Amino acid sequence: MSFSSTKPARKWPVAVLGATGAVGQTFIRLLQGHPWFEVAEVAASERSAGKRYAEAARWIEGTLPPDVAALTVAPCDPAQVRSQIVFSALDSNVAGEVEAAFARAGRLVLSNAKNYRMDADVPLVIPEVNAPHLGLLAHQRHARGFAAGGGIVTNANCAATVAAMALAPLHEAFGLDKVFVTTMQAISGAGYPGVPSLDILGNVIPYIGDEEPKIEREMHKMLGQLTETSITPADFAVSAQANRVATENGHLICLSIGFRRRVTADEAAATLRHWQGCEAARGLPSSPEHPIVVTDVADRPQTRRDVMLGRGMTVTVGRIRPDPILDVKLVALGHNTIRGAAGGSILNAEVLAAQGAFDSA
Amino acid sequence: MSFSSTKPARKWPVAVLGATGAVGQTFIRLLQGHPWFEVAEVAASERSAGKRYAEAARWIEGTLPPDVAALTVAPCDPAQVRSQIVFSALDSNVAGEVEAAFARAGRLVLSNAKNYRMDADVPLVIPEVNAPHLGLLAHQRHARGFAAGGGIVTNANCAATVAAMALAPLHEAFGLDKVFVTTMQAISGAGYPGVPSLDILGNVIPYIGDEEPKIEREMHKMLGQLTETSITPADFAVSAQANRVATENGHLICLSIGFRRRVTADEAAATLRHWQGCEAARGLPSSPEHPIVVTDVADRPQTRRDVMLGRGMTVTVGRIRPDPILDVKLVALGHNTIRGAAGGSILNAEVLAAQGAFDSA
Amino acid sequence: MSFSSTKPARKWPVAVLGATGAVGQTFIRLLQGHPWFEVAEVAASERSAGKRYAEAARWIEGTLPPDVAALTVAPCDPAQVRSQIVFSALDSNVAGEVEAAFARAGRLVLSNAKNYRMDADVPLVIPEVNAPHLGLLAHQRHARGFAAGGGIVTNANCAATVAAMALAPLHEAFGLDKVFVTTMQAISGAGYPGVPSLDILGNVIPYIGDEEPKIEREMHKMLGQLTETSITPADFAVSAQANRVATENGHLICLSIGFRRRVTADEAAATLRHWQGCEAARGLPSSPEHPIVVTDVADRPQTRRDVMLGRGMTVTVGRIRPDPILDVKLVALGHNTIRGAAGGSILNAEVLAAQGAFDSA
Amino acid sequence: MSFSSTKPARKWPVAVLGATGAVGQTFIRLLQGHPWFEVAEVAASERSAGKRYAEAARWIEGTLPPDVAALTVAPCDPAQVRSQIVFSALDSNVAGEVEAAFARAGRLVLSNAKNYRMDADVPLVIPEVNAPHLGLLAHQRHARGFAAGGGIVTNANCAATVAAMALAPLHEAFGLDKVFVTTMQAISGAGYPGVPSLDILGNVIPYIGDEEPKIEREMHKMLGQLTETSITPADFAVSAQANRVATENGHLICLSIGFRRRVTADEAAATLRHWQGCEAARGLPSSPEHPIVVTDVADRPQTRRDVMLGRGMTVTVGRIRPDPILDVKLVALGHNTIRGAAGGSILNAEVLAAQGAFDSA
Repeated sequence: MSFSSTKPARKWPVAVLGATGAVGQTFIRLLQGHPWFEVAEVAASERSAGKRYAEAARWIEGTLPPDVAALTVAPCDPAQVRSQIVFSALDSNVAGEVEAAFARAGRLVLSNAKNYRMDADVPLVIPEVNAPHLGLLAHQRHARGFAAGGGIVTNANCAATVAAMALAPLHEAFGLDKVFVTTMQAISGAGYPGVPSLDILGNVIPYIGDEEPKIEREMHKMLGQLTETSITPADFAVSAQANRVATENGHLICLSIGFRRRVTADEAAATLRHWQGCEAARGLPSSPEHPIVVTDVADRPQTRRDVMLGRGMTVTVGRIRPDPILDVKLVALGHNTIRGAAGGSILNAEVLAAQGAFDSA
Repeated sequence: MSFSSTKPARKWPVAVLGATGAVGQTFIRLLQGHPWFEVAEVAASERSAGKRYAEAARWIEGTLPPDVAALTVAPCDPAQVRSQIVFSALDSNVAGEVEAAFARAGRLVLSNAKNYRMDADVPLVIPEVNAPHLGLLAHQRHARGFAAGGGIVTNANCAATVAAMALAPLHEAFGLDKVFVTTMQAISGAGYPGVPSLDILGNVIPYIGDEEPKIEREMHKMLGQLTETSITPADFAVSAQANRVATENGHLICLSIGFRRRVTADEAAATLRHWQGCEAARGLPSSPEHPIVVTDVADRPQTRRDVMLGRGMTVTVGRIRPDPILDVKLVALGHNTIRGAAGGSILNAEVLAAQGAFDSA
Repeated sequence: MSFSSTKPARKWPVAVLGATGAVGQTFIRLLQGHPWFEVAEVAASERSAGKRYAEAARWIEGTLPPDVAALTVAPCDPAQVRSQIVFSALDSNVAGEVEAAFARAGRLVLSNAKNYRMDADVPLVIPEVNAPHLGLLAHQRHARGFAAGGGIVTNANCAATVAAMALAPLHEAFGLDKVFVTTMQAISGAGYPGVPSLDILGNVIPYIGDEEPKIEREMHKMLGQLTETSITPADFAVSAQANRVATENGHLICLSIGFRRRVTADEAAATLRHWQGCEAARGLPSSPEHPIVVTDVADRPQTRRDVMLGRGMTVTVGRIRPDPILDVKLVALGHNTIRGAAGGSILNAEVLAAQGAFDSA
Repeated sequence: MSFSSTKPARKWPVAVLGATGAVGQTFIRLLQGHPWFEVAEVAASERSAGKRYAEAARWIEGTLPPDVAALTVAPCDPAQVRSQIVFSALDSNVAGEVEAAFARAGRLVLSNAKNYRMDADVPLVIPEVNAPHLGLLAHQRHARGFAAGGGIVTNANCAATVAAMALAPLHEAFGLDKVFVTTMQAISGAGYPGVPSLDILGNVIPYIGDEEPKIEREMHKMLGQLTETSITPADFAVSAQANRVATENGHLICLSIGFRRRVTADEAAATLRHWQGCEAARGLPSSPEHPIVVTDVADRPQTRRDVMLGRGMTVTVGRIRPDPILDVKLVALGHNTIRGAAGGSILNAEVLAAQGAFDSA
């Protein structure tokens, strides 16, 4: 990943929890050469702790950055990890306790896990969509008794993220009423080893465990309204069907959308085309030039060909056309492990950094 | 394909038009060992006419039946093709004229082409769903001045066929109101050479030319009501999104369905489970034991694993569950080149044969 | 699988050890409707023992036969499993002890595991190639102190099996001197869950752990000569390179072959074409009509299109042509989980049954 | 593609012949942002001539550079194309005449077509391997009566290129005697539309038309010795087997190698590790940092994961180990459309530019 912003005098050291797994590796890959953040610490399970990272991790894609290779893996314990900025790639079976422990110790945890996403005082954030939700942190810290600087910020399920980005401009402009969502999701969404090849080669699996409810509820929260102490979920109906297909990266999503008033396909297209998202999310190292790109090519977006647009941070929307039942149909594509996971967490951290949330590096 | 029925004393000779292409080859493969029909003639373009079939066709899958290999390819001219039963695998750019010529000459044409599907006097038939529509033939013959025995029977677009089969029992029982259809269609649906591998390997293409309108209008006709001289289309709204995925055979379809009254997922499942389809379609050589099979396994049907159920003639339905916006969501899978093309045509011919439409063989 | 032979009055009951795994499931699938054998007992690890098979196994492909679904899983203990004929799909980490225990108890174990393959007194058998090696059983029984009827018969690594079948006729006719073997092996060869999809989608992995030495040594043994108490390995040099590719079933193998005298491609082709293999292997329920089929089509055999020839028991050989360095180059394809695993074991048992090795059923 | 070298004051204008096809598009993609060359002209068949490039070409991968999109397509006629540097992506059925016409007119043609590759006076060049062969140009120009500056330089078949790069260091050091080559080649090697998806999904095709003889003869020429007026081919034996597999980009090649003296795997590895290739090929804009990278990871190189090393210009070699029959076995991987096609041509042009072959830009 190459970054657009200028390099500060010094970088913030960051820690990656769950650093040896697939999501952890994506964090490390995306943070390589980051102008603001530097992977100073890697932490993982007791089994890996004490080993050099290069030995503890079976590196999956590309080349392991040498600086990180040489780090010693720490246990996931705030007493042994010092960075204030903590990216969590932990599995949900351990994320609950560990992330809370770090937050209590005054660390800002940017989490990919599902554990806290739906908690009333925890922001679930796509910066272009709902950066103001980060305002919940002050209340969260107080309510949970976290030390100064501590807190948990989550990003959403990867499919929910892509869908929410495509819908946010339309919800802002017209008010969503009903949304049908059918996803075709890449294998990398299941982590590593993840989907057995015998299950997916030349196949479609029309089921991903717990994915449909996540899509439905997480979109409501992200597109909801911030009050002082919580988020009022957006009030529209969602019906989701999730499918696994034999693509490597990128969730492609077919949407049928009804609004509170009649909206034409041209109106929807113009709205998506001009949307820039929250001011707070612009011009940061991981910000894409355009959070949403609209294509007019009849057979785009396509997963393999368009997934890396904006270095994996842009959502591409195409086939915007009238829906015979509701108002508008369209297709959206986003990168599940970049925009929908590690890249999204990093952008969340950048927003907080730009807002002065961290001690000067 | 192995067949369930007993062999008659003699078989009807049949002709295959467009015999060298992918659909023509599927006809030949499925008719191998057929108890009632025997491929006696193969016809194709002038370029192929006069050659032995084995030389004219580049055989794609499995082994070319030796009897057919030895046939001489005839031109697509009713003067040079004598069978009364004519399976047409012609491209739509020639099917219009050629099929009409055969019908005028008193041949019964069972067509895969789209040309006549939407004509008022032409039956568009899935036997289990709407075998009575074959009753249009008498009117068609008269209106078009076809010789005795002549006529055109079409089968639908492959995706429309699979969706219509899953919906037919529900429409009969409850009355459809609104249907959202998102397809994930196999590459064999595009014929051969069809989809370039560079377009589909590790990719999804969210567009298939003219597929969505076909799905929408053909379902209305098939689920419509026969009058004396035409079909009154069914009156429900359809919104379709068609995608090409990297599967070999089998169209997997996600459906969200609203009825004219509240219907629970259990009611829908019970209805699908007990449906047997039109009496006229039962017990024929190509009839599957069950036209629809309902699965309770959470992640089924899957394209590669379930597509050959009922020798490719069964549609498998799974994931029947409540829809948060309409009534019921479900997933349906059917074989696009068997049930959705050549196999469907053959079953149409069997229905007619069983009704005495053809001279005794 | 449909079988060619007539059904005996009664069937032999057989047990499958390791019945819940991928290879065990293949045994059960292939034995469905077998005219001589009936799956009477299924055994697996302690974790599964006591459960109904349908609950203990996550059935992967096709439909679980209802008779087997209802069986209670036994532990892998000869005291609790009574069949004399025992198919072993055990992992190599437990196969050593368990298979010996069954053999000691007078059971005939047909094993897919690698543990005993290279033992001097254990036959490693492809019936068409070296059925006489089964003669080692008497010596094995005596030497190891197995009860009457007890013994272990192994079949080879799946890639070694396919290569050995293609080479056996040539070795018999001309004497092999040097063989270069490059394999392209299907994912099912790694079992289930086996190869992660992220590792193989759009990829080739030029390495399969321990596969190359197995190919080299097991071919020597199978093509070797039986003495009274052991096998003298064949004396030719083998260099193997093993690759994993994104195919479901079927190992495709490129071979360059040098003989002890000059051999032309035509001689090699004629030899392969006329080969029928050992008399003992003919006409059995699982015997293919032709153990080897030679194709003249320039671009065949192809994995997906030819793998099921002879119900997965035929090896297809093509592209037989002169080698610029040695004598002959060719391509061979065989089904790895049928011919190269469970199907091979079953054929071994059929040979023994036909030779009267088992009490009358 | 990002380039390592500094930008000269002005760039050389270049033309791309056959600019609308797959190889032509690769040239345009790779030349985007090139520090020395600028696509000033695009030429194609009469059918495309006169149109804007954006209309004439169906752009396949990524985003069409706007500068090129706006160009008007010229016919492939030296009277209407003025650049001295001409990249030819023409099909072999027209390349013969057109390339000669451009060379006669004093243009330096860098060709991907096979037509002139084996002509005695035409250099077939991989710069790191045999840059001195470019010395043939003077003789070629004289012998063929080309105008000053005119000439034809070819690059090899993509599989031959990858194999030759891996073999060149070993041939230089030890002298090759015998080489067995088995390739697993990506679908992009067949151009677009190229391989039908029905042919390759879940399949291996053990045949690529005319590929094996090309590999055998082109390696001999590239590894041969330059005399004043021709190349003396290298004197070693090659046996090649070419396979098509379902990968997008990258030809993976298994090699078994015998030398004129005993060579150990360690010697071979050390030689490959230290090789830098011809001085003339270093430090150019398209030069990779290392033309060959040796990996010690047991299961690498892998096609999808390693193909982009060195921006597609590096060949990765792994699994260097003793061969039981010859001396050494290894696996090599290179990018077929970058290193093995357009990227190789561009590097050839850079060598010539660096040697002062072109008028100052």
